[in-house]
Amino acid sequence: MVQGATNWNTELTQEWLQNYVDDWVSFYRKHTVDGNVASYIPILQEANRDHLGISIVGKNGMTIRSGDFEVPFTIQSISKVFSFIVACMGRGLSYVLDRVDVEPTGEAFNSIMHLEMTQLKKPFNPMINAGAITVTSMLEGRTSDEKLEPVFQLLERMLDYRPHLNVDAYESERDSSMRNRAIGYYLLETGYLESDLNITLETYFKQCSIEVTLEDLARIGMIIANDGEDPNNKEEIIPRQVARLAKALMLTCGMYDASGKFAAYVGVPAKSGVSGGIIALSPPRVRDEELPFVTGCGIGVYGPALDDKGNSIAGIRLLRHIANQWDLSLF
Amino acid sequence: MVQGATNWNTELTQEWLQNYVDDWVSFYRKHTVDGNVASYIPILQEANRDHLGISIVGKNGMTIRSGDFEVPFTIQSISKVFSFIVACMGRGLSYVLDRVDVEPTGEAFNSIMHLEMTQLKKPFNPMINAGAITVTSMLEGRTSDEKLEPVFQLLERMLDYRPHLNVDAYESERDSSMRNRAIGYYLLETGYLESDLNITLETYFKQCSIEVTLEDLARIGMIIANDGEDPNNKEEIIPRQVARLAKALMLTCGMYDASGKFAAYVGVPAKSGVSGGIIALSPPRVRDEELPFVTGCGIGVYGPALDDKGNSIAGIRLLRHIANQWDLSLF
Amino acid sequence: MVQGATNWNTELTQEWLQNYVDDWVSFYRKHTVDGNVASYIPILQEANRDHLGISIVGKNGMTIRSGDFEVPFTIQSISKVFSFIVACMGRGLSYVLDRVDVEPTGEAFNSIMHLEMTQLKKPFNPMINAGAITVTSMLEGRTSDEKLEPVFQLLERMLDYRPHLNVDAYESERDSSMRNRAIGYYLLETGYLESDLNITLETYFKQCSIEVTLEDLARIGMIIANDGEDPNNKEEIIPRQVARLAKALMLTCGMYDASGKFAAYVGVPAKSGVSGGIIALSPPRVRDEELPFVTGCGIGVYGPALDDKGNSIAGIRLLRHIANQWDLSLF
Amino acid sequence: MVQGATNWNTELTQEWLQNYVDDWVSFYRKHTVDGNVASYIPILQEANRDHLGISIVGKNGMTIRSGDFEVPFTIQSISKVFSFIVACMGRGLSYVLDRVDVEPTGEAFNSIMHLEMTQLKKPFNPMINAGAITVTSMLEGRTSDEKLEPVFQLLERMLDYRPHLNVDAYESERDSSMRNRAIGYYLLETGYLESDLNITLETYFKQCSIEVTLEDLARIGMIIANDGEDPNNKEEIIPRQVARLAKALMLTCGMYDASGKFAAYVGVPAKSGVSGGIIALSPPRVRDEELPFVTGCGIGVYGPALDDKGNSIAGIRLLRHIANQWDLSLF
Repeated sequence: MVQGATNWNTELTQEWLQNYVDDWVSFYRKHTVDGNVASYIPILQEANRDHLGISIVGKNGMTIRSGDFEVPFTIQSISKVFSFIVACMGRGLSYVLDRVDVEPTGEAFNSIMHLEMTQLKKPFNPMINAGAITVTSMLEGRTSDEKLEPVFQLLERMLDYRPHLNVDAYESERDSSMRNRAIGYYLLETGYLESDLNITLETYFKQCSIEVTLEDLARIGMIIANDGEDPNNKEEIIPRQVARLAKALMLTCGMYDASGKFAAYVGVPAKSGVSGGIIALSPPRVRDEELPFVTGCGIGVYGPALDDKGNSIAGIRLLRHIANQWDLSLF
Repeated sequence: MVQGATNWNTELTQEWLQNYVDDWVSFYRKHTVDGNVASYIPILQEANRDHLGISIVGKNGMTIRSGDFEVPFTIQSISKVFSFIVACMGRGLSYVLDRVDVEPTGEAFNSIMHLEMTQLKKPFNPMINAGAITVTSMLEGRTSDEKLEPVFQLLERMLDYRPHLNVDAYESERDSSMRNRAIGYYLLETGYLESDLNITLETYFKQCSIEVTLEDLARIGMIIANDGEDPNNKEEIIPRQVARLAKALMLTCGMYDASGKFAAYVGVPAKSGVSGGIIALSPPRVRDEELPFVTGCGIGVYGPALDDKGNSIAGIRLLRHIANQWDLSLF
Repeated sequence: MVQGATNWNTELTQEWLQNYVDDWVSFYRKHTVDGNVASYIPILQEANRDHLGISIVGKNGMTIRSGDFEVPFTIQSISKVFSFIVACMGRGLSYVLDRVDVEPTGEAFNSIMHLEMTQLKKPFNPMINAGAITVTSMLEGRTSDEKLEPVFQLLERMLDYRPHLNVDAYESERDSSMRNRAIGYYLLETGYLESDLNITLETYFKQCSIEVTLEDLARIGMIIANDGEDPNNKEEIIPRQVARLAKALMLTCGMYDASGKFAAYVGVPAKSGVSGGIIALSPPRVRDEELPFVTGCGIGVYGPALDDKGNSIAGIRLLRHIANQWDLSLF
Repeated sequence: MVQGATNWNTELTQEWLQNYVDDWVSFYRKHTVDGNVASYIPILQEANRDHLGISIVGKNGMTIRSGDFEVPFTIQSISKVFSFIVACMGRGLSYVLDRVDVEPTGEAFNSIMHLEMTQLKKPFNPMINAGAITVTSMLEGRTSDEKLEPVFQLLERMLDYRPHLNVDAYESERDSSMRNRAIGYYLLETGYLESDLNITLETYFKQCSIEVTLEDLARIGMIIANDGEDPNNKEEIIPRQVARLAKALMLTCGMYDASGKFAAYVGVPAKSGVSGGIIALSPPRVRDEELPFVTGCGIGVYGPALDDKGNSIAGIRLLRHIANQWDLSLF
C-alpha cells in the first residue's frame, strides 16, 4: 500500500508504476515453471509456458504494459462474462436468472455432478461450463454467427476494433471438447437449453476462441469496473445493473473452484480462462489512502502455465502481489 | 440511490434515513408470513415470527433503529465470524488457513457430504458448520470458558459491555444438535480437530448462544467494515488483515447456500444465523454519488421467520431494498 | 412352495401351473394402475398400460403362456445382457472387465454422477447406461449393423428366428435420448469408449429397439439359466463362464436401483427394460422340495406400467409371487 | 470342477478335500504380503499379517481345517449378519425393513454421503455401518448386555458354547471409532435410531468384539446355508425367511464395495470383517456334476492382511479358487 501519497503527478506516477510492475513481472516469471499449459484442447498446448504479461488501463489514458503483453490469445472462459452480459442485455435479467442460478459450487468448472444432485437441475452459475452453455443458448439468432454478432458488437464498442475469431482454436475446441458436449446433452434433457444444441455448442466454442490482447482485456475490465460506463467519455456501454451483477459473479465464481481463495487473498472481481488469460478490475470506490490513479482500472494478465484449478499460476501470484500492494481489494 | 446529494446535514440526514427505514420495516414485516421459525433447536421455536427489526450504526454516532430492534436474540452462526477472527488473532492466519479452506460450497450449512467427497477432507470454509467447528477447536484454552474468554473480550472491546450467554439456548442446543455432533466426530476422525471434541462442541454451542441486540451487531459490523478499527476513536480492535479476510469470507460464504445470490443482489459482506439475525456492513470506500453518511456503517437485522436456506426471509428483503437504494453494494 | 411333491406328471403339472399362472395374472393386472408408461422416449408412451403377460419355458418343452403374452415389445435395457455376452464372446472376459466394473451402485440407471465421483471414472457395471454404452463400444465392426450382427446371430441361435429391429422405436430413441448422448460424450472424454461415439450410440439405440415376444425372452432366459446350454439339445450357445457371469450381474445389478430389493424379495437373476419387459430365470440347481419342472426355466414378463425405478410394477409383483410360491430364489 | 464324480466315499472325499485345501492355503499364504492389517482400531494392528486359515463344515460331520484355523479373532462386521437376523426374529421382518433398505451402494462401508444424498435418508442396507447401527438400535433391551443377549443366545444355539466378548477389542473400538459415532449422531438426527445412541454404539462395538474361531464361522455358515436349519439334526434355529433374506443381503452387500465383484467371481453369500475374517456358505441346491459333499456347507476364512476395500486379500483369493474348483457359485 502506498500510504500518505497525496500529490500524484500522472506522468510521474505512470512511470513509477511501470517500473514497479516491470520488476514484479520479472520476479513472478520464474513461477511459470510450477504450472502446466492446458492440454485438454490441442491448440492450447502450443502456448509458451514461460510467457507472463500484464496490462493495466485506467482513467485519463493511464496505461501500463509489461512482459509478454503483446502475445495474442483466445479468451476461453473469460467469454462467459461477455455472453452473460449480452444475454442479460438481450433477454433481460430476470429471463436469464430464471434459467441459471448465481451460486458458487466448490466444484471443478466442468462438473456435471452438481446438476444431477440438485432437485431442479438448474445450472449453479454462469461462470461454470454448464451455466455458460445455458447462457449461450439464450443468445438470440438462428446461427452461431448471428448469436455472436451482439457479443462482437459489444467488444467492438469497448475496444474500438472488432476482435477476430481464431479459427484454428475454434476447430480444435469443437473437435475435442467432449465434456462440453456431455454437459450440453445433459442440459438438453433437463430442458435448460433455449436453442438447438449444436448451434449452441458451435456458438460456445466460437466465443471461447475470440482472440484478444492484454490491453483489450484491461480496457474491457475498466469499463465493467466503472459500472459499464467508459470513464473517459462517460458513455454507457453496458447497463449499470448488468455490469454490477457481472462483477458480483466474477468475485464469487470467476476463478473456478479457487474463487473463494481469490476473493480472500486478492479481493477483486476477475475471470480466468484456460488459455492463461485473466481479466480483473479494481472497484471505482475510493479509500483515503489509495492511489487515485488505479481506482476503477481494468487489468489483463496472461500466463499460460496453469495451476491444478485451471488458473494462470504466475498470473494469480502477480495479481495478488499488485492488488495487495496497491490496496485494490474490495474488502 | 440518492444521486446528486451533496450538502448533507447530519441531523437532517439521520431523520430522513430514520423515516425511510421505518417505512420499509413496516412494508417488509408482512413478508414474515412467508417464512418459518427455526425448529431444529427447541428454544428457537419460541421466537415471534412476526418480529422484524434493524439497527444501523455509522460514523459520528449516527444510529438508526427501527421495528423490533430491542428484542435480544442469540447469535447462532453469526458467531462463526467472531470465532474465526479470534482464532486468527490467537493462532495466526496461516495456522488457521492450513486447517480450513475459504471456498464456498453450494451445499447446505450442515452438509457432511463435501468432507467425504474431497481428497483431503479439509472443511471448505469457516462459515459452514464443519469449518466453524474446526475453527472453534483452534481456540486456546482447556475448558470451553477459557476458549471463549477471548471471544467475549473481543466483543466487550467492541460493545463496551460484556454480552452474556443465554444458558437456556446453550442447553437446548447442546442437547439437540445431533448433526453437529456427527460433524464433530467426522472431523475428529479426519484429524482436523485441534481440541477435545466434547470441549470443542461445548464451546461451539456456547458461542452460538451468546445473546445480543441489533445495535450490538451494527456496532460490530461497523468496526469490521472499517478494517477492524473503530472509526470514532481510530482504535484498532481487529488486525486489518484479519478483518478484511473476514469480510471476504462473509461475502462469498456468509449466507449459507444463498451466499452467491446475496452477493449478486445485495452485494455486501454479511453473516446470518438461524435465530433470524444478520450482521451486515457497508464498505468504507466512497463513490461520488453516495450517501457519505452510511459509508463504513454496520447493520444488524433480526427477523426469526426463515427461508428454506435458513436466512431471515423478511430480513434479507429489507437489507436488499436498503442496500440497493443507498447503493451499498461493493460492486 | 409345493412341499412333498414327488411324482410329477408333466402334462398334469403343466396344466396345473397354467391355471395357477392365469389366476395370478388376473389378480396382478389390477396393479398396473399404480404405475406409469415410460415417457422419456415418445414411442414407449403408446404402450397399453393395462397389459400384463408372462411366458415360462422349461425343459422338455414345458411352456406356460398367460395374459398379454402375444404383444411384441422392444427389449430396451434387457439388451444390455445380450451385448455384454456378445462383447465377452468376441473380446474375451478380461478385455471387457478391464473397461467396465461389476459393482452395483445404488444410483438411477442414467446417473453420470458416479462416473465423476470415482477416481478412475470406470463405469460401475454393464447394466447401467454408462457401462452398457461402454460395452456396446467394444462390439466389433465398423458400422452399427456390423456391430449388431453377432447380437442378432446369438439371438437367432437361441430363438430359431431372427428378431427384427423396430425402426420407429429406434428412430424415436435416437432422436430423444439426450441423457445417453451426454453419457456417451462423458465416456469419450474419459477414454472408455472403444469405437466412434456416434456409431456406438446408433448401435446402442438399435440394440434397445430389437423387438421380441415374451416367449423369446423366456427361451433366452432358459438358456442363460442353464449356463448357456440349450437344455433340450445340450448345445452350448454361450460359453459357460460368460453365462454365469451374466447371471451374477443380473442378480446384483439387473433391476436398476431396485436390484437389491429384487434379490432380497424375488431372488432370481433378472433384467428389466423401460418398455416394461423383464427377463428372469430360475437356477438349474435342485432343492428336494422343488418343482423339478421349473428348475432351469426361463421367464419373460411384460407390463408397460412402470414403478418409479423404471421396472414393470405389476410384472415385479407377479414375478415375486410366483418365485416365492415355486421357491425359485437362489437363496 | 469335479465333473462326473458320482460315488463319493465320505472318508476318502474328506481326505482328498483336506489335501487339496492344504495345498491352496500354502499357495495363497504368500498373497498376504499384498495386503495390510487394519489400522483404524489399534488392537487390530496386533494381528499377524501372515496368517491364513480356513475351515469348512458340511453335512454328516464333514470338517476340513487348514492353516491358521485355530487363531481366535473378533468378528467385526460379520456381526452385522447376526444382529440383522436377531432384529428380524425379535421385531419382525417388516419392522426392520421399514427402517433400513436392502440396496447395495457402491460406496465404502463407512460412508455418510449416501445418507445425505437420498431424500428419505434411510440407510441403504444392513451390511454397511449406517444400516448396521440402525439394526442394532432395534435390538430389544435397556442395556447393551440386554440387547446382545439374544445375539449370544443365537450363537450359543448354533455353536453349542457361548462365545465371549474380547474386552480389549471392545474398549479399543469404543475409544477409537469416531466415524461410527459420526454416523450414529447423523442417524439420531434423521430419526432412524430406535434406542439411545450411546447404548446403541456400545452394543454395536460389543457385537463387533465377539471372538470366534473359523470352525464357529463355518458352523454358522452351514446353518444359514440350510435356511436356518441345522442339517444334522433338522432343528430350525433361524426362521427360513430370515435366513434366506440374510443370504441375499450377504450376496449383494456383504463384501463392502467389492460385493459385486465377489458375486461375479466367487458367487456365494459371504460377509467379511476388518479383522480379516469371512463367513461364506454354499447353497443347498444340487447340480448334477457337483460334489454332493460340499453342498450346503459353511466356510470360515481368516487372513488379517486386507485389500483396499477392507476384505482379507489372501482369504478372498483362496475362497475364489475353491469356489470355482468346487463349483459353489449360485449362478
